Amino acid sequence: MATTGWGVVEKGRDQRCRAVRYGCILTPAATPMVERLQALARGLQRLIDDEKPDVAAVEELFFAKDSRTAANVGQARGVILYVLSQRGLPVHEYNPRNVKMALTGYGGADKSQMQKMVQGLLSLKEMPKPDDAADALAIALCHLNTQRFADGPAGAVRPKTGERP
Amino acid sequence: MATTGWGVVEKGRDQRCRAVRYGCILTPAATPMVERLQALARGLQRLIDDEKPDVAAVEELFFAKDSRTAANVGQARGVILYVLSQRGLPVHEYNPRNVKMALTGYGGADKSQMQKMVQGLLSLKEMPKPDDAADALAIALCHLNTQRFADGPAGAVRPKTGERP
Repeated sequence: MATTGWGVVEKGRDQRCRAVRYGCILTPAATPMVERLQALARGLQRLIDDEKPDVAAVEELFFAKDSRTAANVGQARGVILYVLSQRGLPVHEYNPRNVKMALTGYGGADKSQMQKMVQGLLSLKEMPKPDDAADALAIALCHLNTQRFADGPAGAVRPKTGERP
Repeated sequence: MATTGWGVVEKGRDQRCRAVRYGCILTPAATPMVERLQALARGLQRLIDDEKPDVAAVEELFFAKDSRTAANVGQARGVILYVLSQRGLPVHEYNPRNVKMALTGYGGADKSQMQKMVQGLLSLKEMPKPDDAADALAIALCHLNTQRFADGPAGAVRPKTGERP
C-alpha cells in the first residue's frame, strides 16, 4: 500500500490558520503501477477541483537509502508535481528539516512534538491522523508561516510508499 | 540534462520491422523539476498524437545504486506512465536483460552488439543515435518480437537521467 497524505489549510484575516480538510490517498500494492499512478492523479485532481487551493507545498524529494523505495516514491511524486502544474498551481518544496524548524523552531523535532504543534496551530480537538496527513498539514503550515500572502487555502501533499509495491 | 530516448517501430505484413521515427526528449538540468516534467509530458503527448501508436513499451524501473538518481528517474518515469495511460495506450514493461535476450539471444549482450542488431533488424543505413534512442528502438523491437499482434506501430520510451539535475 502506498500512502499520499494531504492537507488543505487556510489563513484567516485574523492570521489564524484553519484546517479545511485532510486525509490520504491510498493505492493498493497489488494493483499495477500504471493504475496506481492514475488513481493517485484522479484523487489529487478531484481534491484540487473541490478545494481550489491557490498554491501547493510538497515535501522535497526524499532520498531513501533503498533505491527501490526512492524510485517508487519518485514515480508518485513525478505524477503529483505534473498534476499540480497542470492545474496551474505554483509548487513550493520544503524539506522535513525546514518544516520542523518552521513549526517548532527546532529542525530535529520528533513526530510527537510535530503533531502537537500541528494540532495546536490548527486548534484541532483531535490529533490529525493518519501520520501522513498530519505531515501534510505540517508542510502546508510551514508554507503559510514562511510565505506571507493572502487568505487563499494552501494544499500540501506528501507522497510516501509505505510498502514496496 | 536528462534524456528520454524514444522510438516508433512498425511491423509490416511481410513481418519485417521498420523504424518510423526515433529520437530523444531532453530537459535541461538548470530548469526547475516541475517545468522539466511538464516539458517531458508535452513532448511525449505530441509524439503520441503524431504517431498514434497502438501500444507502448517502457524499460522497467531501473534501480540505480545511487538513490538520488533512482528517485529522479522515478519522477520522469511516473509522468511517462501517466501520460501513456491518459492517452489510452496499453503499457508493457521490459527489463534490459529481456530486451537483450529478445534481440540477440543473449541476456548479457553489450551495447555495440545491441546497436548492430537494432540497425540490422530495422535495415537502417546508419547506426541509430543517440544511444538512448537506440535503446528505445531495441525495447520496441523486443515488444514486437515477443508479442505476436497486428501491424500497428509500437512506441517505446526510455527515461534516463544523464546527469543529476
